[in-house]
Amino acid sequence: MEEKEISQAVIGRLPRYLRYLGELKDEGIERVSSQELSDIMQTTASQIRQDLNTFGGFGQQGYGYNVGYLYDEIRKILGLDREHRLIIVGAGHLGQALVNYTNFERRGFIFRGIFDCDPGICEKTIRGIEVRPMEQMADFIRENDIDIAVLAIPKNSAVEVAKKLADCGIKGIWNFAHVDLPVPEHIQVENVHLSDSLMKLSYNISSSQEESRTSGKVDGNGQNR
Amino acid sequence: MEEKEISQAVIGRLPRYLRYLGELKDEGIERVSSQELSDIMQTTASQIRQDLNTFGGFGQQGYGYNVGYLYDEIRKILGLDREHRLIIVGAGHLGQALVNYTNFERRGFIFRGIFDCDPGICEKTIRGIEVRPMEQMADFIRENDIDIAVLAIPKNSAVEVAKKLADCGIKGIWNFAHVDLPVPEHIQVENVHLSDSLMKLSYNISSSQEESRTSGKVDGNGQNR
Repeated sequence: MEEKEISQAVIGRLPRYLRYLGELKDEGIERVSSQELSDIMQTTASQIRQDLNTFGGFGQQGYGYNVGYLYDEIRKILGLDREHRLIIVGAGHLGQALVNYTNFERRGFIFRGIFDCDPGICEKTIRGIEVRPMEQMADFIRENDIDIAVLAIPKNSAVEVAKKLADCGIKGIWNFAHVDLPVPEHIQVENVHLSDSLMKLSYNISSSQEESRTSGKVDGNGQNR
Repeated sequence: MEEKEISQAVIGRLPRYLRYLGELKDEGIERVSSQELSDIMQTTASQIRQDLNTFGGFGQQGYGYNVGYLYDEIRKILGLDREHRLIIVGAGHLGQALVNYTNFERRGFIFRGIFDCDPGICEKTIRGIEVRPMEQMADFIRENDIDIAVLAIPKNSAVEVAKKLADCGIKGIWNFAHVDLPVPEHIQVENVHLSDSLMKLSYNISSSQEESRTSGKVDGNGQNR
């Protein structure tokens, strides 16, 4: 399977396919056409065919897609057919929220360790996992074959921690700190910049109001179109 | 200024420009060329010029960009020159983490109310904000001129709450529930699907390992390239 040169936009859409296929599977539906899938997902059938063809295509002319097979194949493409071992750095509110979110575990992302620089929070446990001091992080990663580190710390300390993580042979960083991390290219970084997302929402609200003002299509309370 | 037809990809990059320009401003730097900016941001100068030209261009040949002016203009484009009033639905771990994240406030996003369906948590306060029962949500939105609702609730209840929010005249929903919300088009939805982001990271880890296996460029511990 040619997996190189596949755009991040296509990759970004795969989890959504997985979600909808999982729902179809749960409903006991065995096959689906790209047209049916596009109706449910509110996208175009050609987009679906194009995206899935990137990975070799899984459909059959006149039959459509086998739901269970396609679901399993997308899981494999996303690397969800194996377990990922995670640590989280930062046991503040966000860190705690992430550890407590059990859906990640269902997908094979298992939190193994929690680290924090605040001695006051160390030795506490979150969902049964002990919070350890930062000094133990490097050894813990090596000894427990950790592949993903989650950064739920302020931007000031994130760059330094990322460098340490790179030295420990971590494979991926899920970064919630509001900063770009300077790590070697073989380490994968996925940013969740919450402020950026909120600003994008702010833009879309402003621009849709601007549009409705100029077009006069929406009335004062914005309820009808 | 022509703001229509601007791709979400460009919009998505604006907060990052704002972040870097803010840092330059803090350092007392008054002007920057697209080349200098591209070096700091690890992107191309032509990408920067193209993105900013979308909004009419703010640079001058031979001078570059005035940092303070460009910063202010991007703030305006993003709708950050006015205050946004938010409520959050769901006072669980994630909801609490978001309310406690003070950076949003610095950008003009002010949490005014918190709502939860669990009577056990109602009347508690988070950062001085009282948690109210869901029944009070609609009136609260209208009386306090709330424009953004943050959904930090499970997917099962999110669709129903989104419909209620639409009826109250909310302008935008910042959705953390792992489901697509069926709301009218004039309501802006920005999704933060955390699981999807983690799956994308998983894909990139798998595919980079696959690549290094086939190319043989990376050795066993993944440290050199």
